[in-house]
Amino acid sequence: MRKEFAGYKGRALQVLKKAEAEIGDIIRITRDKEAYEGVLIPRSEYGDDKHIVIKLQSGYNTGIKITSTTNIKKIGTGTKPTFTPPPLPTQKPHLPKVAIISTGGTIASRVDYRTGAVRPALSASDLYSVVPELSQIATIDAEILFSLFSENITTKHWTETATTVAKHIKNGAAGVVIAHGTDTLAYTSAALSFALQELSVPVILVGSQRSADRPSSDAATNLIGAVKAASTAPFAEVVIAMHETISDKTIVFHRGTKARKCHTSRRDTFRSINTTPIAKIEDEKITMLAEHYQKRHPSRQLVLKPNFDEKVALVKFHPGLNPETIESYIEKGYRGIILEGTGLGHVGNYCFPAIRKAIETGMVVAMTSQCIWGRIDMNVYDQGRDLLAMGVTPLEDMLSETALVKLMWVFGQTKDTEEAKRILTQNTANEFSPRTLLKEDE
Amino acid sequence: MRKEFAGYKGRALQVLKKAEAEIGDIIRITRDKEAYEGVLIPRSEYGDDKHIVIKLQSGYNTGIKITSTTNIKKIGTGTKPTFTPPPLPTQKPHLPKVAIISTGGTIASRVDYRTGAVRPALSASDLYSVVPELSQIATIDAEILFSLFSENITTKHWTETATTVAKHIKNGAAGVVIAHGTDTLAYTSAALSFALQELSVPVILVGSQRSADRPSSDAATNLIGAVKAASTAPFAEVVIAMHETISDKTIVFHRGTKARKCHTSRRDTFRSINTTPIAKIEDEKITMLAEHYQKRHPSRQLVLKPNFDEKVALVKFHPGLNPETIESYIEKGYRGIILEGTGLGHVGNYCFPAIRKAIETGMVVAMTSQCIWGRIDMNVYDQGRDLLAMGVTPLEDMLSETALVKLMWVFGQTKDTEEAKRILTQNTANEFSPRTLLKEDE
Repeated sequence: MRKEFAGYKGRALQVLKKAEAEIGDIIRITRDKEAYEGVLIPRSEYGDDKHIVIKLQSGYNTGIKITSTTNIKKIGTGTKPTFTPPPLPTQKPHLPKVAIISTGGTIASRVDYRTGAVRPALSASDLYSVVPELSQIATIDAEILFSLFSENITTKHWTETATTVAKHIKNGAAGVVIAHGTDTLAYTSAALSFALQELSVPVILVGSQRSADRPSSDAATNLIGAVKAASTAPFAEVVIAMHETISDKTIVFHRGTKARKCHTSRRDTFRSINTTPIAKIEDEKITMLAEHYQKRHPSRQLVLKPNFDEKVALVKFHPGLNPETIESYIEKGYRGIILEGTGLGHVGNYCFPAIRKAIETGMVVAMTSQCIWGRIDMNVYDQGRDLLAMGVTPLEDMLSETALVKLMWVFGQTKDTEEAKRILTQNTANEFSPRTLLKEDE
Repeated sequence: MRKEFAGYKGRALQVLKKAEAEIGDIIRITRDKEAYEGVLIPRSEYGDDKHIVIKLQSGYNTGIKITSTTNIKKIGTGTKPTFTPPPLPTQKPHLPKVAIISTGGTIASRVDYRTGAVRPALSASDLYSVVPELSQIATIDAEILFSLFSENITTKHWTETATTVAKHIKNGAAGVVIAHGTDTLAYTSAALSFALQELSVPVILVGSQRSADRPSSDAATNLIGAVKAASTAPFAEVVIAMHETISDKTIVFHRGTKARKCHTSRRDTFRSINTTPIAKIEDEKITMLAEHYQKRHPSRQLVLKPNFDEKVALVKFHPGLNPETIESYIEKGYRGIILEGTGLGHVGNYCFPAIRKAIETGMVVAMTSQCIWGRIDMNVYDQGRDLLAMGVTPLEDMLSETALVKLMWVFGQTKDTEEAKRILTQNTANEFSPRTLLKEDE
């Protein structure tokens, strides 16, 4: 059985064979004065022949280099985790119907310790058994759409997700929950915010920072909060449901166009930028935080605009940026560029000729700020006014990630430059905050 | 005198001529029911012929469109602000000698209302007269090095600034202050952190968010804090001195490699990321906040490494990023790429072939996270391990801006790929925080 050593080769394979250890076994690795214990997991096809990868009891994986002093001992046999679902809770047909669409990511997965593979676990009965509380909140209609790490999700997946949400709404869902990896969750939430207009019910994207097999997992609490909001929240917008703080007490709902992943590992990684979350849920009670929002209204007719155009670039300005970066997008026929400028919306004047050329060829060049917080104002300094005069479109307090997604979406609606600029600067899904909302320091 | 209407043409020029108003005059513009008053300032060469730009009393500039109902009236004559410096304070030769190097930016400028030009104001006597407190702290040796908006500063300016700092230290300065625009202040501070090694005295970069002509200006308080620290602080590192909060009470000193401009307009825009500021000053008292730091030590011999190589790119990954962006940097002969990945250090698998190709051609490809806060860990998920196996260099908790500057600096020291990777991953100026420093949510 070649699969037992999946990915191991050369030296690493030799020492494993010698120890009679195979994938899924518990092994003990000693080297000089160090010792490691864990489950032997498969290696990547790109891997070298010098490391062995084990899953530690903490849930983390680690790679250990084999040296001449390394000793490996099999101390336990891998057992495929048996999963016996508890008896299904009694269905309550009077509960609201909530659709859960899974795209992959930590929240939608169970790790198979034996093979190391991440498997989607999202049949309705799987969900009820992993998170039995859900059966008290809603009748779940579960659908596995993709099984992707979220960094692999692209515009075609946004289109398919939007279309699938529309289907479930048409079928009478009281709300839709989308399980999604956190890495690009905010890009997808922005995409759906533009693609799904005139929503009648909430669309809640939810992720988790720790998989369900880890003690500190946030998967269940986030999912419960998301399903609760999908079934009963008074708003009908696209939002992200995640922890408010590092405690499990409160789940907040960030507007799909205003959220950002701001920490690599914390559970409260998402932040609403330049605004507050739209709502929160604490002790099962939903409280609205935004003054204005689109209300749930079952008879409102959804407008689905699921097309995106990838010929849009994101250029983060930095000292020494070579204008040839901008020129190469002109040559390649891109339709637009989001400039992530500095401060109030600036780039070095050595980029001006390239920007002018891009605009002259009919591209949309729009400005956001790499500061993240605050609002650009290109009227304050000479060079900002120069850029405005050239035809650069200022994007107020819009996040650069949202701006990129919006411009991809805009070119899914029109290929005309002027019309594209008109749609880009129109407030479609609260991507622009009103000035008064900002607690600016003046 | 053509200069009186500098930048105005066509229709705009006509209405100004008719009103007999010229640059520097106070004018009143009425249009329908709106009215604006301010000083007429010159327009950019890129400007259209439909707008008139005035400086409002608030200090902000605004452009007003001319319509058929627009009426312009000259209500005052521009007076060139006369500047009579107060008598110079008595020099105190026993005070520490502090060099102030000006590179431009809001902090180092006075706006000439008549011409709209931003002029450097940094002779020692100018400084003493604008901020008389300085004469109680130090003997100032002022030098105007550049007069640039900081978005125009590039690697050659970093080199020149580092060399100038070294000159002042050699000449016996007790500390060096660098006045700099805030937009790219953090890039320059990272550059100087790598270029100036084995510092004997503090090097304090200082900026301001509001020019000295505005009531809420932070220029004087930041400058006083910077000069105080330059003259007496116990540390000998490159830092940024800015407001801690929106009050004027405390100035904090951020390590040059760990700071980021995080708000377009607030005075407390700079933040130390993944660490605390190294020190603060409150009621003229300097308190150290970092446990470990390089101490002031006048006899330590400076090591100056002022060279940078601009053949380094910053690629912010996003859904739908076309791998041709990476390939074009290979074709153009770049030496390295900083990937601003998602989450723990990921990019879409559709970029893997391009990344592999870049590494095979001898480029350094290194990973940071666009989350900003936290630390990457490419061992947690399959795709992270794939990237490591390909040879991508993980950069722990380093800021992507710092990583870019460091890689430019690394290739200023060596052109050898392996040596470059060795230097890149070596902790040179606290660009890596020790793991224990992070308040991670586990």
